[in-house]
Amino acid sequence: MKRYQTYPVAVLLLLCAVLELSAQTGGKKFTTYVNPFIGTAAVDKKSLSGCAFPGATMPFGFVQLSPDTRHEVNRPCSGYDYNDKTIVGFSHTHLNGTGIADLLDVLIMPITGNSKTADDYKDSVSRDFRSAFSHSQESARPGYYQVNLLDYNVNAELTATAHAGFHRYTFPQSSGAGFVIDMDHSRLKGTGNRSAKIISAEIRIVDNKTIEGYRVLTGWAKMRRVYFRAEFSRPFASSFLFDGKRIYENKPLVMGAEGIKAVVHFDSKANEQVLVKVGISATSIANAKQNLAAEIPAWNFDQVVTNAENAWEKELKQIQVEGTEKQKRIFYTGLYHAFIQPNNVADVNGDYPAGDYTTGNAPDKIHYSTFSLWDTYRAAHPLYTIVQQQRTAGFINSMLRHYDSYGILPIWQLWSVETYCMIGNHAIPVIVDAALKGIKGFDVAKAYEAIKGSSTRDHIQSPFGIYNKYGYMPEDLQSQSVSITLETAYNDWCVAQLAKKLGKTDDYNFFLKRSGNYRNLFESGTGFFRAKDKDGKWIEPFNPLQYGGNGGQPYTEGNAWQYLWYVPHNVPDFMSLMGGKQAFVAKLDTFFNLQDTIKKNGNASGFIGQYAHGNEPSHHAAYLYDYAGEPWKTQFYINKVLQEQYDDQPAGYTGNEDCGQMSSWYIFSAMGFYPVNPANGVYAIGSPVLSKATIDLPNGKKFTVQVKNAGRENAYIQSITLNGKAYNKAYITHADILNGATVEFTMGPQPNKKWGVDMPPVL
Amino acid sequence: MKRYQTYPVAVLLLLCAVLELSAQTGGKKFTTYVNPFIGTAAVDKKSLSGCAFPGATMPFGFVQLSPDTRHEVNRPCSGYDYNDKTIVGFSHTHLNGTGIADLLDVLIMPITGNSKTADDYKDSVSRDFRSAFSHSQESARPGYYQVNLLDYNVNAELTATAHAGFHRYTFPQSSGAGFVIDMDHSRLKGTGNRSAKIISAEIRIVDNKTIEGYRVLTGWAKMRRVYFRAEFSRPFASSFLFDGKRIYENKPLVMGAEGIKAVVHFDSKANEQVLVKVGISATSIANAKQNLAAEIPAWNFDQVVTNAENAWEKELKQIQVEGTEKQKRIFYTGLYHAFIQPNNVADVNGDYPAGDYTTGNAPDKIHYSTFSLWDTYRAAHPLYTIVQQQRTAGFINSMLRHYDSYGILPIWQLWSVETYCMIGNHAIPVIVDAALKGIKGFDVAKAYEAIKGSSTRDHIQSPFGIYNKYGYMPEDLQSQSVSITLETAYNDWCVAQLAKKLGKTDDYNFFLKRSGNYRNLFESGTGFFRAKDKDGKWIEPFNPLQYGGNGGQPYTEGNAWQYLWYVPHNVPDFMSLMGGKQAFVAKLDTFFNLQDTIKKNGNASGFIGQYAHGNEPSHHAAYLYDYAGEPWKTQFYINKVLQEQYDDQPAGYTGNEDCGQMSSWYIFSAMGFYPVNPANGVYAIGSPVLSKATIDLPNGKKFTVQVKNAGRENAYIQSITLNGKAYNKAYITHADILNGATVEFTMGPQPNKKWGVDMPPVL
Repeated sequence: MKRYQTYPVAVLLLLCAVLELSAQTGGKKFTTYVNPFIGTAAVDKKSLSGCAFPGATMPFGFVQLSPDTRHEVNRPCSGYDYNDKTIVGFSHTHLNGTGIADLLDVLIMPITGNSKTADDYKDSVSRDFRSAFSHSQESARPGYYQVNLLDYNVNAELTATAHAGFHRYTFPQSSGAGFVIDMDHSRLKGTGNRSAKIISAEIRIVDNKTIEGYRVLTGWAKMRRVYFRAEFSRPFASSFLFDGKRIYENKPLVMGAEGIKAVVHFDSKANEQVLVKVGISATSIANAKQNLAAEIPAWNFDQVVTNAENAWEKELKQIQVEGTEKQKRIFYTGLYHAFIQPNNVADVNGDYPAGDYTTGNAPDKIHYSTFSLWDTYRAAHPLYTIVQQQRTAGFINSMLRHYDSYGILPIWQLWSVETYCMIGNHAIPVIVDAALKGIKGFDVAKAYEAIKGSSTRDHIQSPFGIYNKYGYMPEDLQSQSVSITLETAYNDWCVAQLAKKLGKTDDYNFFLKRSGNYRNLFESGTGFFRAKDKDGKWIEPFNPLQYGGNGGQPYTEGNAWQYLWYVPHNVPDFMSLMGGKQAFVAKLDTFFNLQDTIKKNGNASGFIGQYAHGNEPSHHAAYLYDYAGEPWKTQFYINKVLQEQYDDQPAGYTGNEDCGQMSSWYIFSAMGFYPVNPANGVYAIGSPVLSKATIDLPNGKKFTVQVKNAGRENAYIQSITLNGKAYNKAYITHADILNGATVEFTMGPQPNKKWGVDMPPVL
Repeated sequence: MKRYQTYPVAVLLLLCAVLELSAQTGGKKFTTYVNPFIGTAAVDKKSLSGCAFPGATMPFGFVQLSPDTRHEVNRPCSGYDYNDKTIVGFSHTHLNGTGIADLLDVLIMPITGNSKTADDYKDSVSRDFRSAFSHSQESARPGYYQVNLLDYNVNAELTATAHAGFHRYTFPQSSGAGFVIDMDHSRLKGTGNRSAKIISAEIRIVDNKTIEGYRVLTGWAKMRRVYFRAEFSRPFASSFLFDGKRIYENKPLVMGAEGIKAVVHFDSKANEQVLVKVGISATSIANAKQNLAAEIPAWNFDQVVTNAENAWEKELKQIQVEGTEKQKRIFYTGLYHAFIQPNNVADVNGDYPAGDYTTGNAPDKIHYSTFSLWDTYRAAHPLYTIVQQQRTAGFINSMLRHYDSYGILPIWQLWSVETYCMIGNHAIPVIVDAALKGIKGFDVAKAYEAIKGSSTRDHIQSPFGIYNKYGYMPEDLQSQSVSITLETAYNDWCVAQLAKKLGKTDDYNFFLKRSGNYRNLFESGTGFFRAKDKDGKWIEPFNPLQYGGNGGQPYTEGNAWQYLWYVPHNVPDFMSLMGGKQAFVAKLDTFFNLQDTIKKNGNASGFIGQYAHGNEPSHHAAYLYDYAGEPWKTQFYINKVLQEQYDDQPAGYTGNEDCGQMSSWYIFSAMGFYPVNPANGVYAIGSPVLSKATIDLPNGKKFTVQVKNAGRENAYIQSITLNGKAYNKAYITHADILNGATVEFTMGPQPNKKWGVDMPPVL
């Protein structure tokens, strides 16, 4: 005992802190639970990859520096598939989990070999410089990625700041060492609507340690300008520039469109480390240079790795969970994926690419982009309202700037411009949710103007004139009509809630009425939401198993079964439409059990009957039993999805990760609750799989979930206490979370059918 | 007499001024001699239209507001063909005389009729709103255009400031009056390399008198952003917006890509005048608004017309000529065409679209674009060194900014970006000529750096590594090899001259040596410049009549005959290569007399034998007799071209006007001299057709040409005096012009073979 008493107080406090950490993560940093390879492979050949990327990024960073194993085909859209055997290089911008490819800007690849003359490169005008790699010589953690490039015997290490990539390459002795800088590297080349086409590109050898350049291209994002400045830690001795037709030796500049590349050469010593710092900007080379100077002033690679790791640790430790090591890996990787985007595309001086293709300047130096809202409004943005409150205001301010350019809020925004991808106007629930939850830092009056504008101004996929005239989207006038009608009805409910809060009674009445439009497409004979034409006739033939994609059918990336459940704002009314609780439960039971062999939309995967967890329309459906007084069925299916459809392996997701949505579903559900209606501050209770979760809230309070008997066989809630008192509601509220409640679950292997009879309310 | 003596002195002075004016133009304003319809039609079906446009513009203005009679096909690239019967509307940007189409931004068309509902427009998503018109109800003069649109019974009047279009429409009584604003209007739609593709577009109804919008597109200019703000003098009552698929009624905004249009409606009274002011910007809507406010603050259409006319009068009166009315119409229309471009694309606040696709700011608010240099370096830019000295400095400063972006000087610059159209680097002679002529206002040291960079840095069509290695472009490594070699040799001579002036002896020696590379492609057996491959073998088979286009053949838009004459910097050496004066003259004689039936390149027209005045390679050729001591043959052919290949009718040019080059050839030649070498300050003497020409020089002096016995039958110079003294040289110098010399020609119907034996020197 005496021995310990000699320690000063500071050491004891530190020890306490360490012990507290240990208690939560077994002494390990939270970042050690992140496996960036999760989501980089598909579960099977019928499923999509999660489309995650394993490379280095800061939380919500602009630069996301990652290896690319494939290009010139669409998927995986992140550029990396775990099943691939070769790497073509390391590019600086990526998308996490999307179903369409873009970005992959400024590819750098180290090389060694015998090529030294222009003749040696004469076949290189069109070829890439890919190298084999092995997962046994590859590693990744937040802010750091490493791989040994076997063909070149070069070890590559990557890290990143918000606006710059930092590369460290360890070369063997070689008289043909060097780097390829490829401005032509893109996905989805071709003639399709979203295929990448380089409009203009340039590479400039500034001096023998510096290269600058840019490319302007059209692709999924309609027009992007990408500028870079690369600084090398050692001089290169010679260079070759390519323009798709010709090779130029030791020339200072090459420009053109397709095929713009550079190769620089030097003699490397054995184990020589060569570092490359690359600043990226969406507005100018000058800003790329400024970004780089501001964020990587020195050649200290390890320091930048540490900075990135610390930044991630700070973000991840907001939720401390206990559970199995595997669960923690899935959970923290999920949180990591949720915090990869939206991305701050503004330069360090605040310049950002504006929606009208001008350059704007954000006073707070922040302009977020990559809003995959059809996906992320469901759970990712509600999660951000808990653990990213300040950034949520930033997201909304960026959306309002988008509104200034477009007259509507973002739909699927990429690189600051609208792609008009998917359907609905799901910035609305994001903003309404934030406003109703009291998140500060944005102009609510302007936000309401934008919400109302986005709900009344006709635009692509949202012809409100037609909608108002018919009370539904007639399929003959607007395809994907059922999905659009249902999702618009929900958004309208959201608009009504904010109108109500702001005392706009007329608007409230208008939008609340319109939020009931789902009724106009419910066909009680079959018990489905079905498409009508403009004469009000049901479209025949009708097959509830028939899939739609992104046009040409009434349902978006799903079928009538998957879209049947989309009335999150008024489940009781929907239930009565269906003939009451029993009919509703019977249909839900069928939904989870009905097998079929029909051709499915490629985005639908992760099936349990017709439930398809691999795509978003199903995400709330298992929670609907809560609304019918049979919460044990919710518990059964949530437990099943948590246990069976998430893994800590590369094939960790049963569908695209979708910019944080697949992960956010897990984060909420693993803690035991989920925002079925993402904007009413109510979370339906499911079936937690973690044994404990504590959320550090910005208000200084802690919200805690404790779970007794957590485990795969104990899917069922036996009882719950809220702050120590018995709790029989099948939901908790956002106020409970903010108040720092403690929710204690007791789980068991059999349903307790007496628990949870208080159903989630319609607010 | 007494009566006159009562007039005050001021009136007398005014009278004198008027009388002086009368002496020069018969009392009419110079602008009255401009017929903007010249060059808007082709001479015959085998020839190209001049590709001029008849609409309203300020000298060198950004906005050039003109009717478009055709689209969706390439030619005429100006949008207007005199032989067409319908007008689709009035767009705000045009190209004068080019062979490739682009621009035609923000089309406005007035309409009347019965269309009032969305249903009335359901077929309008794809159709245009063209109207018949008649030349009998159409007129144009500098800064003003008028046409009666017969289908709508609307009289349209257009004028322009530098950055804004001003429209005045006189409507009949109509309950369906209105305007179409079409953001989809382009030429060259399709999948070709230079075809227009709208990347993004938007129209916003700001209020019932204001519309804003933009489009981003790729086309000949690789990427253009075009922003506008339109203000109407009266409110419109309703609007329809189109996005290529759907019609939106009374909505504030439409966005998308292809097919973005608006129709606004109002009830018009009989003879109601509705005015529309449209500000245009290449950088932002805010700047379009600022441009408009700065330049058209009021609704005074007539004042803007007067301003434009006065601006043109000021420019045109710099050269006062006497001759037939027809000659004066050709001459002043030519001067007008020469002053249509290059265009100042900078906004009134100096913002301009930079070559790297950022927005720059020009301190002097000037950034010129549309540099058709392969054409204009020959005579248009030399003309500018006489009558646009200040703007010449502006042109060069803009070119140097281009160099900052691209590392090379402009080749064919459009909307501030490089199109890599045509061959050579002909900003070099423009800049060297200006520097050697002592034009102030640009940094000669930086200009030299840019010239040298453009002559040494490999780029598209200019692989100098190959050129230096072989001493010529081998056709198997670089097509158009003969034309590129010849034109590069000339440019190299120019570089050498400036190097010499700046004391850069090594550079002088290097480039002077390289300027002799034409010798490496002269094949004495046939007496032609011919293509070699990289092994130094002549490419067989060789047919001097065989045409090349823009790649795939050794000659650019011509054949071996037309490119035979391209050694403007060293005609004596070239002559000796050919075997001396006699052989040279014999070959020239054949050139002007050799008929053929071979398939010609579409750009070659205006034939006299193999001489093709309709395209630039021939432009100096008729003057070459001066260099062989047979100037009377120069006089013969120059007179023939002046008389036969220029007209004051719509079919006034035998080929594309080419951004002022075809006109500048006339302007020089009609006054009796021409810059065969456009950068040595020497003008070969031809055969003047005007009876007098006086140039007001910026230094306050006047250079005067007087011609006795001018006329079609008097092609031949009998004698010349310079400042009253007998003059026997077949050339004058730039110093003679700047010194304010008077050159008096005496012409006659037969050659005086004793005149002109002093041949133009090699400087």
